[in-house]
Amino acid sequence: MRDVAVIGVGMNRWGELWEKSHRDIWTEAALEAVADAGVDRVDAMYVGCMSGGLFVGQEHLGAMLAEQLGMGPIPGTRVESACASGGLAFRQAVLAVAAGEHDVVLASGVEKMTDVDGGAATYALSTAADQEYECYHGITFPGLYAMMARVHMHRYGTTRKELAEVAVKNHAHGSMNPLAQFQGKVTAEQVMESVLVADPLRILDCSPITDGAAAVVVASLDAAKRMKGGAGAARPLVRVAASAHATDSMALHDRDDLCWLGATAKAAEIAYKKAGIGPEKLSFVEVHDCFTIAEIMVIEALGLVERGKGGGAAASGLTALGGKIPVNTSGGLKSKGHPVGATGVAQIREAVLQLRGEAADRQVKGARYGLTQNMGGTGASTVVHIFERIERGQGGMER
Amino acid sequence: MRDVAVIGVGMNRWGELWEKSHRDIWTEAALEAVADAGVDRVDAMYVGCMSGGLFVGQEHLGAMLAEQLGMGPIPGTRVESACASGGLAFRQAVLAVAAGEHDVVLASGVEKMTDVDGGAATYALSTAADQEYECYHGITFPGLYAMMARVHMHRYGTTRKELAEVAVKNHAHGSMNPLAQFQGKVTAEQVMESVLVADPLRILDCSPITDGAAAVVVASLDAAKRMKGGAGAARPLVRVAASAHATDSMALHDRDDLCWLGATAKAAEIAYKKAGIGPEKLSFVEVHDCFTIAEIMVIEALGLVERGKGGGAAASGLTALGGKIPVNTSGGLKSKGHPVGATGVAQIREAVLQLRGEAADRQVKGARYGLTQNMGGTGASTVVHIFERIERGQGGMER
Repeated sequence: MRDVAVIGVGMNRWGELWEKSHRDIWTEAALEAVADAGVDRVDAMYVGCMSGGLFVGQEHLGAMLAEQLGMGPIPGTRVESACASGGLAFRQAVLAVAAGEHDVVLASGVEKMTDVDGGAATYALSTAADQEYECYHGITFPGLYAMMARVHMHRYGTTRKELAEVAVKNHAHGSMNPLAQFQGKVTAEQVMESVLVADPLRILDCSPITDGAAAVVVASLDAAKRMKGGAGAARPLVRVAASAHATDSMALHDRDDLCWLGATAKAAEIAYKKAGIGPEKLSFVEVHDCFTIAEIMVIEALGLVERGKGGGAAASGLTALGGKIPVNTSGGLKSKGHPVGATGVAQIREAVLQLRGEAADRQVKGARYGLTQNMGGTGASTVVHIFERIERGQGGMER
Repeated sequence: MRDVAVIGVGMNRWGELWEKSHRDIWTEAALEAVADAGVDRVDAMYVGCMSGGLFVGQEHLGAMLAEQLGMGPIPGTRVESACASGGLAFRQAVLAVAAGEHDVVLASGVEKMTDVDGGAATYALSTAADQEYECYHGITFPGLYAMMARVHMHRYGTTRKELAEVAVKNHAHGSMNPLAQFQGKVTAEQVMESVLVADPLRILDCSPITDGAAAVVVASLDAAKRMKGGAGAARPLVRVAASAHATDSMALHDRDDLCWLGATAKAAEIAYKKAGIGPEKLSFVEVHDCFTIAEIMVIEALGLVERGKGGGAAASGLTALGGKIPVNTSGGLKSKGHPVGATGVAQIREAVLQLRGEAADRQVKGARYGLTQNMGGTGASTVVHIFERIERGQGGMER
């Protein structure tokens, strides 16, 4: 297998983009990534999208967007894994380059969620859970994560305020991200006094409904080293050190432990082994904080904190910018927004910016390894990637 | 890249399966493929499905079906490219094995289309066309293919009876396929007198709404040669000689030629080059005859007949079993049925049966190379695969 590098990134301003179609917002991000990579053509493209059918009445996005990019007849493939669609689309792009099938590939994600009303959006999102075993009985995602939160609070003593601190931290990070949907800070009191959605989760514990897209360009590491064009020439290279994907039971009732994310733990185990590093080597991580409790469970499953100890991480400053292991410097799903198919790709964009030293006010100093974790549903599918900064040497390219 | 072989196939009886869920029908096919391969585990699985969201209210099928197979936490990835979803899922599985990322991978497809009424099914299928440029203005797939047929008839003199002969041939083939949805033969007169859908296409020119699934198992060719288990030991090996994917404009109005399938021609060109053969070497092909006119256009784009000469192929016997190049010995989408996400994988199953010499009454004698062509929408995405029979030598394994 060939080593793979990310050579370009793009993302549009996320939010409620009523004046733009899904096609428009995807194109903004994709063209930016291609320009950032300094290439004039890609050999293939992948797009992660959770439910083009239910959100915008459009499936067959691979073909449509390859044409939209002006690059038909290149292969265009849509990949879906609920809210992990973007991360999984990126993984397929990496495999295509690693296999030698394609040399330069665009990996992207898009979701246009505000063309339907809130009820229809909630229904569309519920198709990420097990319809027959969960949704037909009336539960939706806030309820599922609320049950996970309740178990975590009961078993480990996690507090309502600790949940709120995750939102406080991520909104603070997002206030430094000019593309984030929400750029205001919140206090723990504001979170705890916000509208109740599914006890104990309140509206400020939940990631929003968002329109948005993100895209990155991957190429073989060898090709990336030879590239002189674009803005890439003066930048460090970003190598894909590991790509891993694992699954868990779809329905919560089938799991041994309601507040342990088995697929995340499994994917992380594979990824650390492939990259040859452990979690202590990571400079930062971007994780799937669709609800505040999710970030708490994820950092446990990634081995950043002990099992059961995720609750205190945000409040203690451990996971804040400047802390030992900054989590979600982009603002996370909570503040940046969560256009479900795009989220996993936007995480990768943030990792690339950090490793290039281009993250501006939210830069993690000296970042060398970064990890992204993107999951679908209540964690039934999880994709983990590890990225490594590689300096370009003076007299040539060196590791 | 490693050479890849298909080592197992499975498919359930297709039709209106009201007593089974999408989960049930997928599992039947998947377990049969795993048993046929003689393996007790796969390392990853891919599933092609066009619109789990609109047909059954269930996305996130990769994770759900990996669990359903009893093989979680293996990676489970859903791929969508409208009616080419199955072929494209197979292609991703091939790439994963070729890259060395996984050794034994299940590639599958499923669609459960009869849980919604006809209007909702027509809407769901229309999401394979360009919603903004085509469907919002009222057209659906029979209308789009009817326009293509009218141009073909006008330009090349293709007749109404020639369209009908495609249906006659494929129903005759399907009458020998015990898993086909329709197993009765039809006459050209019956086709031409059947209910008008979109002039000139009548109901017997159209593939049906179907519930069904199909699955195959792929492994590296080297691993396949070493396998002694299952029913595989005594069988010829089936090598994936080429995998190709191309796209075309989504909306018909953007194409240079309304009745030329550019993505099929492009994918075929790539596939012939990869396989090192031309169309004259093929023993049979399975093509995407969603409408009778589609088969006519596809065999032209594949180079089996001259451009504009597809109309006479079925009537002359050229493409019938026993003819020079049998097309759709399985019965095709027309008779076997068309559960959209499963179709591309079922085509591959038929190719494997033919190359193994296991196609019973519909066997093509001495088949050595077979091609499958699976397309989405009006051909905006097309996946072409070429398969080669490799005999196992007496004293070992030989090409």
